[in-house]
Amino acid sequence: MTTHKLAVIPGDGIGPEVTAEALKVLEAASPVQFEKTTYDLGAERYLRTGEVLPQSVLDEVRTQDAIMLGAVGGKPNDPNLPPGILERGLLLKLRFELDHYVNLRPSKLFPGAVSPLSDAVLGKGEIDFVVVREGTEGLYTGNGGAMRVGTPHEVATEVSINTAFGVERVVRDAFNRAQRRPAKLLTLVHKTNVLVNAGGVWWRIVQEVAKEFPEVTVDYLHIDAVMIFMVTDPARFDVIVTDNIFGDIITDLAAAITGGIGLAASGNVNPDRTTPSMFEPVHGSAPDIAGQQKADPTAAILSAALLLDHLGYSDAAARIDAAVLKDLETRTGTRSTAEIGDAITSLI
Amino acid sequence: MTTHKLAVIPGDGIGPEVTAEALKVLEAASPVQFEKTTYDLGAERYLRTGEVLPQSVLDEVRTQDAIMLGAVGGKPNDPNLPPGILERGLLLKLRFELDHYVNLRPSKLFPGAVSPLSDAVLGKGEIDFVVVREGTEGLYTGNGGAMRVGTPHEVATEVSINTAFGVERVVRDAFNRAQRRPAKLLTLVHKTNVLVNAGGVWWRIVQEVAKEFPEVTVDYLHIDAVMIFMVTDPARFDVIVTDNIFGDIITDLAAAITGGIGLAASGNVNPDRTTPSMFEPVHGSAPDIAGQQKADPTAAILSAALLLDHLGYSDAAARIDAAVLKDLETRTGTRSTAEIGDAITSLI
Ligand SMILES: CC(C)[C@H](C(=O)O)[C@@H](O)C(=O)O
Ligand SMILES: CC(C)[C@H](C(=O)O)[C@@H](O)C(=O)O
Repeated sequence: MTTHKLAVIPGDGIGPEVTAEALKVLEAASPVQFEKTTYDLGAERYLRTGEVLPQSVLDEVRTQDAIMLGAVGGKPNDPNLPPGILERGLLLKLRFELDHYVNLRPSKLFPGAVSPLSDAVLGKGEIDFVVVREGTEGLYTGNGGAMRVGTPHEVATEVSINTAFGVERVVRDAFNRAQRRPAKLLTLVHKTNVLVNAGGVWWRIVQEVAKEFPEVTVDYLHIDAVMIFMVTDPARFDVIVTDNIFGDIITDLAAAITGGIGLAASGNVNPDRTTPSMFEPVHGSAPDIAGQQKADPTAAILSAALLLDHLGYSDAAARIDAAVLKDLETRTGTRSTAEIGDAITSLI
Repeated sequence: MTTHKLAVIPGDGIGPEVTAEALKVLEAASPVQFEKTTYDLGAERYLRTGEVLPQSVLDEVRTQDAIMLGAVGGKPNDPNLPPGILERGLLLKLRFELDHYVNLRPSKLFPGAVSPLSDAVLGKGEIDFVVVREGTEGLYTGNGGAMRVGTPHEVATEVSINTAFGVERVVRDAFNRAQRRPAKLLTLVHKTNVLVNAGGVWWRIVQEVAKEFPEVTVDYLHIDAVMIFMVTDPARFDVIVTDNIFGDIITDLAAAITGGIGLAASGNVNPDRTTPSMFEPVHGSAPDIAGQQKADPTAAILSAALLLDHLGYSDAAARIDAAVLKDLETRTGTRSTAEIGDAITSLI
């Protein structure tokens, strides 16, 4: 039997709880075995040891076939945990070091899931789209700085970096995905009327790559217009391609309108397969409900399906999606994290 | 009788139609007279003459007491109108030259307005908040550039610039507004966990200015978390203070959940009153319905109320708000732009 090496980073807060359920379902659905190595990373480790991501750990993780991540992050406003330490030192560090240039975030309103949108909006059509968010450029590069910090003359900058190389590969991936979907509609989201430099390279490359995909219809929306359509006509979206920060913003809204971040899965993917891709729920570590078996593991479980799909086991991935769908349809009462995981496992 | 000098920039598309109604209502409600000068600016003028905002016009506008703007912008993807020309050359140019550092955008779900949110969400409480968007810094400064444009080696950057000076003045304005409201809650919105430099100066200054406003409660949310709350619990917001791009994004979503951009007013305000402030609907020029009397002038009319309030005529502003409210409550059938303007005028 094939065996894949799986790095497991349960992380902080509800991370370990949802990861346990995701692994349960993963192993029930998978036609292959996983040789798991668990890595102790996150806020707790940092606060205990001062270490965020030791080089030796990164080197080891790099040799795995895939990574499953729960959630990282400590208590809000912990003075010992300045903002950015974990995000830039661990989560983004992994995305950048492993060149996860496709941050993949599907959004689907499953039957049984509760959307905050009105019936009038939901009646317009099925919500089922995927956001292809660029993962290694834009405002996330850590480029920028600050001078005269803390004085009335402080100047702080953040630089969004966009390269033809970086934009082209993610745009191509998005076209490939659009090509495989029934609607074959790709919407570029940017703010070309203000960010003329970054917008220029995104716009030009989408036009260029479009020539290779004559069956795909190309649309463009400013990020502010997307806000409106996301709540008034989300059925219009099929594949969205956008930069790192706009993708961050859109995908939380997309998660919210499709039933909440308890259901939103994501993959940090390197489509070239030269490094392990990383799969994680969109939600955070929710320290306020940690250890209480209150978290919904569905997002983590759906991320496990993305993991299987990425490794080439699309049937197994589809089995997980179907089990989640069936579970959502019949959800009643309050169940613990493990009860939801068990219920989905039994439906596989 | 006092007379104020008012610059009127009707602009393109539906701009002239909604501006005509806003002027009608303004003059009906105002206790003072306006000496109006109309400026022909926008896509049409640019396409006709190649001029965006001649220096002589800017100099003249600078001597006015206030500016009313309809909307500027040509047909989408007009090859003769590259993205950014009008936005950066006219709209943003006015905001920057006239130092409109407070971009004020109130959001209120008026009775009778149709929200795309479900009754369950709307039942949580009244939606009534104001976004204080910084208007002269951030990603909007035009800082950045591109090299090797059009080649596979293109690099394009956009620089977000944040100064203590710029942040402090808008944060102080937001605290002043929060102080005058019943809930007295100020929410800073940023992405401090990724944009640590810009986030740092925003965070520090909010903490500092907070000391002068002990009655105001301070909250913080990441921009992605705002996306979730905006559609699941918008009643939680009172005053939001944020940077230029996050403010752009949030206010379109806020407009959408409170009945659409047909109702969303905005002011580009210089609270120091050293330059004329500019009032405009959040919506664009909508060239597809231009000249057909199909546009809703309510956003422009509510912007006229903000204009009166800014000039010190808060009673007159309140009269416009009340008339709009009454009109919305009794709206039936389809009315022309002028019919809506007339109806609101008659309710003053
Ligand atoms: C935690 C944070 C750095 C991260 C991001 O901004 O990408 C998160 O919001 C996400 O969307 O995965
Ligand atoms: C047209 C554009 C430059 C403008 C902005 O981004 O500020 C608009 O979206 C707005 O919100 O007023």
